[in-house]
Amino acid sequence: MLSKSQIGFIKSLHQKKYRKENGMFIIEGIKSIIEFIPSTYQLHSIYYLAENKAALSNLPSNIKLFEVNNAELAKISTLQAPQGILALVHIPKTDIFKPEALKNNFTLVLDGVQDPGNMGTIIRTADWFGIKNIICSQNTVEIYNPKTIQATMGSLCRVNVYYLDLPIWLSQVEIPIFGALLEGSSSYDISWGKEGVLILGNEGQGISGEVIKFIQHPVTIPRVGSAESLNVAISAGILCAEISRNLNK
Amino acid sequence: MLSKSQIGFIKSLHQKKYRKENGMFIIEGIKSIIEFIPSTYQLHSIYYLAENKAALSNLPSNIKLFEVNNAELAKISTLQAPQGILALVHIPKTDIFKPEALKNNFTLVLDGVQDPGNMGTIIRTADWFGIKNIICSQNTVEIYNPKTIQATMGSLCRVNVYYLDLPIWLSQVEIPIFGALLEGSSSYDISWGKEGVLILGNEGQGISGEVIKFIQHPVTIPRVGSAESLNVAISAGILCAEISRNLNK
Repeated sequence: MLSKSQIGFIKSLHQKKYRKENGMFIIEGIKSIIEFIPSTYQLHSIYYLAENKAALSNLPSNIKLFEVNNAELAKISTLQAPQGILALVHIPKTDIFKPEALKNNFTLVLDGVQDPGNMGTIIRTADWFGIKNIICSQNTVEIYNPKTIQATMGSLCRVNVYYLDLPIWLSQVEIPIFGALLEGSSSYDISWGKEGVLILGNEGQGISGEVIKFIQHPVTIPRVGSAESLNVAISAGILCAEISRNLNK
Repeated sequence: MLSKSQIGFIKSLHQKKYRKENGMFIIEGIKSIIEFIPSTYQLHSIYYLAENKAALSNLPSNIKLFEVNNAELAKISTLQAPQGILALVHIPKTDIFKPEALKNNFTLVLDGVQDPGNMGTIIRTADWFGIKNIICSQNTVEIYNPKTIQATMGSLCRVNVYYLDLPIWLSQVEIPIFGALLEGSSSYDISWGKEGVLILGNEGQGISGEVIKFIQHPVTIPRVGSAESLNVAISAGILCAEISRNLNK
């Protein structure tokens, strides 16, 4: 049985302000929790329905466990249909991004992506294609938003996300800088090479003026039909597939 | 000024049951409305803030116009941040899908896609790549869901969506049937040819047993990293890009 103050605390973490203030975020679902347990993230506590107890053996002893009922879970969950188990995870101290991580690799750069679902889907897609690092502008949506976490499907454990001042950071990048624009070379024909960064922009505005000037290789997914643009996560997926095809051929 | 019953009626269309009962759905945002006006869809009425009046010249005279204030728009909108204009559109009578539409074309087939955002993004992506028709199983999410409409970004005007009994329909398809599966030929190497249907499955369960048996060419997007799967709309995007690259080379 959870106390009112426990419920209030967990519910406060539905909001960005309190996640930041308390240094914790929420993950939900047994699959996600099982991926986070052995990761570098540190779990604070787990709230589970009795039916999920069996999945929680051999946990590190510093994780607090609370059996809850459906009514309690509904109160603390961020989901319309709670998944039977929820955990609080400590927000890790931000590592400094090491420039050598760029070498022999592709890195995604997100300039102002706003939709949490898009953000999470991009993290999941990066994980599928073995992209380890994503650099975000400071106005990009927070990764600990519950909708982002949900869309990552556990991939946040394996992809590092950094928030940096993009113009300052890009001015120091010494490998090819690609950018997804509506007017560029065809993504099917461009020489991707073996390392680079790929910039993707905001859902409505695209890549900002101060970032666009760093793009050395504008790239476009050739359009055949009539849609005005592609969703940013779809563009990321298609371009990651192109990069991956090229790296692994 | 809208009457209580007008507001109640429009709000009822937020729900699938009443969309079906009343044969209408909601679209929002000036871009979307401008794409729907000249399309084959028939608009019933438009609700706009004064600032958007100028965009509404030369409309067909059978569309009823209502100037509303912010408070009224907030009540009838399906969005947290309403976009200044909203329209009701008649749900068209369903055409019968003509088998000849399959010829010299690729057609997407969705087997149980549940997330309205994924559905809308797939429609928008199909439109980008010039795919005209999407066939859905009867348990696939409804296209008139406000989140689907929003994610299509107007592309619903140009892509036809049909709900059919998939096993019966697939048993009559005479062109190659591709299916996105975790174990299949590499999407980079498979012979796509000039016509075919591509089946994509439900977010959690994938393609159902009764549909999977129709797949002649299982296809997989090669994984380099560790994510368990890709989001279905991302898979659709990557595979549509492959098909398009092949058709237009």
